Amino acid sequence: MTVGDVSMPQMHVVQGVKIGSTEAYIRYPNRRDLVIFEFAEGSNVAGVFTQNAFCAAPVHISKAHLLKSNARYLVINTGNANAGTGKLGMQNALETCNKLAELAGVQTSEVLPFSTGVIGEQLPMQRLLTGLQPALDSLKADAWLDAASGIMTTDTTPKGASEQFELDGITYSMTGISKGAGMIRPNMATMLGFIATDVPISCELVQHLLKTTVEQSFNRITIDGDTSTNDSCILVTTGQAGGAEITSLEDERYQTVLEVLTRIMKRLAQLIIRDGEGATKFMTVAVEGGADTQECCDVAYSIAHSPLVKTAFFASDPNWGRILAAIGYAGVKNLDVEKIQVWLDDIQICKDGGAAADYTEEAGAEVMAQQEITIRVDLGRGEAKDTVYTCDLSYDYVKINADYRS
Amino acid sequence: MTVGDVSMPQMHVVQGVKIGSTEAYIRYPNRRDLVIFEFAEGSNVAGVFTQNAFCAAPVHISKAHLLKSNARYLVINTGNANAGTGKLGMQNALETCNKLAELAGVQTSEVLPFSTGVIGEQLPMQRLLTGLQPALDSLKADAWLDAASGIMTTDTTPKGASEQFELDGITYSMTGISKGAGMIRPNMATMLGFIATDVPISCELVQHLLKTTVEQSFNRITIDGDTSTNDSCILVTTGQAGGAEITSLEDERYQTVLEVLTRIMKRLAQLIIRDGEGATKFMTVAVEGGADTQECCDVAYSIAHSPLVKTAFFASDPNWGRILAAIGYAGVKNLDVEKIQVWLDDIQICKDGGAAADYTEEAGAEVMAQQEITIRVDLGRGEAKDTVYTCDLSYDYVKINADYRS
Repeated sequence: MTVGDVSMPQMHVVQGVKIGSTEAYIRYPNRRDLVIFEFAEGSNVAGVFTQNAFCAAPVHISKAHLLKSNARYLVINTGNANAGTGKLGMQNALETCNKLAELAGVQTSEVLPFSTGVIGEQLPMQRLLTGLQPALDSLKADAWLDAASGIMTTDTTPKGASEQFELDGITYSMTGISKGAGMIRPNMATMLGFIATDVPISCELVQHLLKTTVEQSFNRITIDGDTSTNDSCILVTTGQAGGAEITSLEDERYQTVLEVLTRIMKRLAQLIIRDGEGATKFMTVAVEGGADTQECCDVAYSIAHSPLVKTAFFASDPNWGRILAAIGYAGVKNLDVEKIQVWLDDIQICKDGGAAADYTEEAGAEVMAQQEITIRVDLGRGEAKDTVYTCDLSYDYVKINADYRS
Repeated sequence: MTVGDVSMPQMHVVQGVKIGSTEAYIRYPNRRDLVIFEFAEGSNVAGVFTQNAFCAAPVHISKAHLLKSNARYLVINTGNANAGTGKLGMQNALETCNKLAELAGVQTSEVLPFSTGVIGEQLPMQRLLTGLQPALDSLKADAWLDAASGIMTTDTTPKGASEQFELDGITYSMTGISKGAGMIRPNMATMLGFIATDVPISCELVQHLLKTTVEQSFNRITIDGDTSTNDSCILVTTGQAGGAEITSLEDERYQTVLEVLTRIMKRLAQLIIRDGEGATKFMTVAVEGGADTQECCDVAYSIAHSPLVKTAFFASDPNWGRILAAIGYAGVKNLDVEKIQVWLDDIQICKDGGAAADYTEEAGAEVMAQQEITIRVDLGRGEAKDTVYTCDLSYDYVKINADYRS
C-alpha cells in the first residue's frame, strides 16, 4: 500500500543519457534486476554516499572511481547488496566494472557500481556478468521507467520525477528515479537515487548542487531509523542540450536549476516515505522556533523515530502525550516545556506545554483520520526551523521485515 | 506473552516497610490501582528519575520533596501518568501528598507521589483522594505482591525480586518490585521501581548504591527507545533489622549489599524486557573490545533499537547483515570494520567484518529458534565492554500500542 499520489510523471528524455536493462536473475526470476546508465562524454558526475561504517563494496568502489575520473557508466543490480561480503565482495564489484568497461570500451574507473538487496551474500557473478551485454544492447534514451522498476527491492511502486524548464530560450530536462522502502534514515541518502539533466554545469557546481539538495530531501526522511550500508545518490549533468556552461553560483540560471532539482529531489525522497514499508500515513514533522537548525532536526527525528508516536498515527489516535514525550527526550538542552506549542495540521493540541484548552479529541481524531498529516512543533526558543518526513508503523512493517528473506 | 521465567519469588517482608492498596477506579473498574508504601521513621530514601524534559508532575514533586526530607510515604497510582498536565497537574500531585500527609500525620514533604499510565489527562482527584484512607487502612508488611500488581499498566505480569542475606550474624531482607512494558529506554530508569531493605545504611551510601546499580540495570534496557516522562526508581533502607549502620564504601558489608542489590535490580530490569510489549525473544547485546564504555553502549543500543534487527529476531531469521549495518551506523569514530567479530550465542556469524567461513544458516537458525539469545560483538579496539538487554519487535507490539487508549 502506498500513501497519496505516487504516480509516475512523464519521464522526459535527458539528452546524453541512455539506459539499458535486463533480467539477470540476480535473486528472483522474471524480473528486471540489472540496469546500466550511459552518459555522453564530457558529462559531470557527483555522488553522495552512506555514512554507515559498514558501507558496501560497491560504495567503496564508486567513491574511489569518482575521485579518479568522471563516470561514463553506472551499473546497478537489485536483489543483492554486496555488503558485508569482505574482500571477495570488493573483487566482485571491481570485476563487474572491469567487464562493463571492456564491453563498452572505457576505463574501469569510468564505471560506478551500485547494489541493493540482501546483505551478507556474495553476488551471483556469472549471472551478473552474463547480463551486462544484453543490458548494453538495450541502451536507449527513453527507458527511465524501466530503470525505476529495475532498481526496486521491497518497493511496491517505481519512483520517478521529471521536469522541463527553459533557460535563455533553451529547453532543458531533468529526470530522476529513486528506490527504497525500508532501512531509511538520514546521513546519507539512505537509498538509491539517480538524477540527470542536460544543462551544462561545471563539475564543482554539480557536487555543490547535490550536497545542497540532499540535505533538504534524502537527508530529511526516515522510516525506521536504520541507515543502510549501500545508500548512494548520483547527479549527472550531460550538458548535451547546449548553452553556455554554468560555472558560478551567481549565474542566474543556477537558481533555476537549484529550484527544479530541489523539487525533484524532495519528490524522489518523499516517494520513498509514501511507499514506506507498511506505511498507511505520510507525516510531515515541522519544527520551528528552535535556537538552531540542529535542535529542530533532533526534535523532528525524535518524533519521527518514536515507535509509540508511529503506532499512534497508525491507529489514528491523537495521543499527543507521546509526541510531548518524544520532544522531551530529544536531548535539547534547557528546554522550557512551558513554551512548547504543538499542532496537528491546524488544530493546536498542546499550548504552553499542556493540553490546549479548546482542544477536543474529536478535532484531533478528525485530523488523524487523514492519510497526510503535519505535526508542527514550536519550541519557543528562536527562529530556526527544519522539517522531516516519515510514515507510521503498522502491522505490515513487521510482516514485511520478518518475512523479507523468506 | 512473556519470555522465559518471570515467576514471582517468595517476597520477603522487609522490616519497617508496610504496603497498602485499594481499587480507586483511576481509569478502570475492578483493579488495584492505588498503592501506598509506609517506611519506619529513620529510613533513608534515595531516588533517580527520568531525564525527559517533559517529566511528569509527580516527578517534579518527588524530586523537590526528596531534597527537603527523607520520605515516610510513597503514593503510587496507575491508569494516569499526570504528565503533560500543566499547573493543574502539579496542584493535583501536591494535593495528593497534602491529603495523605494529613491522614498519616506527617509533613507533606515526607510523601512522594508517583503516577503511571496515559499521558495528558488530569487525574480523577476525587476518586484518588477517596482511595487514600482505604489504602492506609490496609497497610501491612506482607503485601509486596499486591503492590507489584497494583502498579501495572500494560504489564501482563507482576514483577518482583527478593533475597535474604546474612551480615555479622543478622539476617536481612531486600525486596523490590518494578513495572513497565513499553516506553522503555535508558536515562533514566524508564519505568517504576521500588526496592527496600532493612539493612542500616547511611543516607549518602543509599544514593550511591542506587546510582551505581541503576547504571547496570534499568539504564541498560530498551524495548522501543522511548524514554517515559514518569520513570522513577526508589531505594529505601529502613535499618529496622538492626546492626551497626554501614557508613563507608570500605565496610565489607557494603560489598555484599551491593552484590545483592545488583542482582535484584538486574532481575527487576530484565523482567521488564521479558514482559516487553509483544516480546517473544529476550536478547542480550554484549559488546566488548571497545575503546571505552560509551562506544560499547552506543553499539549495543544501535543494535537493540534497530527495528530491522528486532523484526529479524521476531522472525527467527539469522539476518546478520542487519546487525552489521546497525554496528556501522552507531557513530563509532574510525571504526575498522575488518576487526569486527559477531557471535549469536557461541556461533560466530561474522569474522573480521565479513561472513565467518564456517558459519552456516542452519547453525544460525538453531540459535535464533531459542527464546533467549546473546548477540556478542567484539569491536577489536580495546578492553571496554558493556551489555544491554532488549526484546524483539512483533505484530503484537504494534497491536498493543495502536490499541492502548481504546
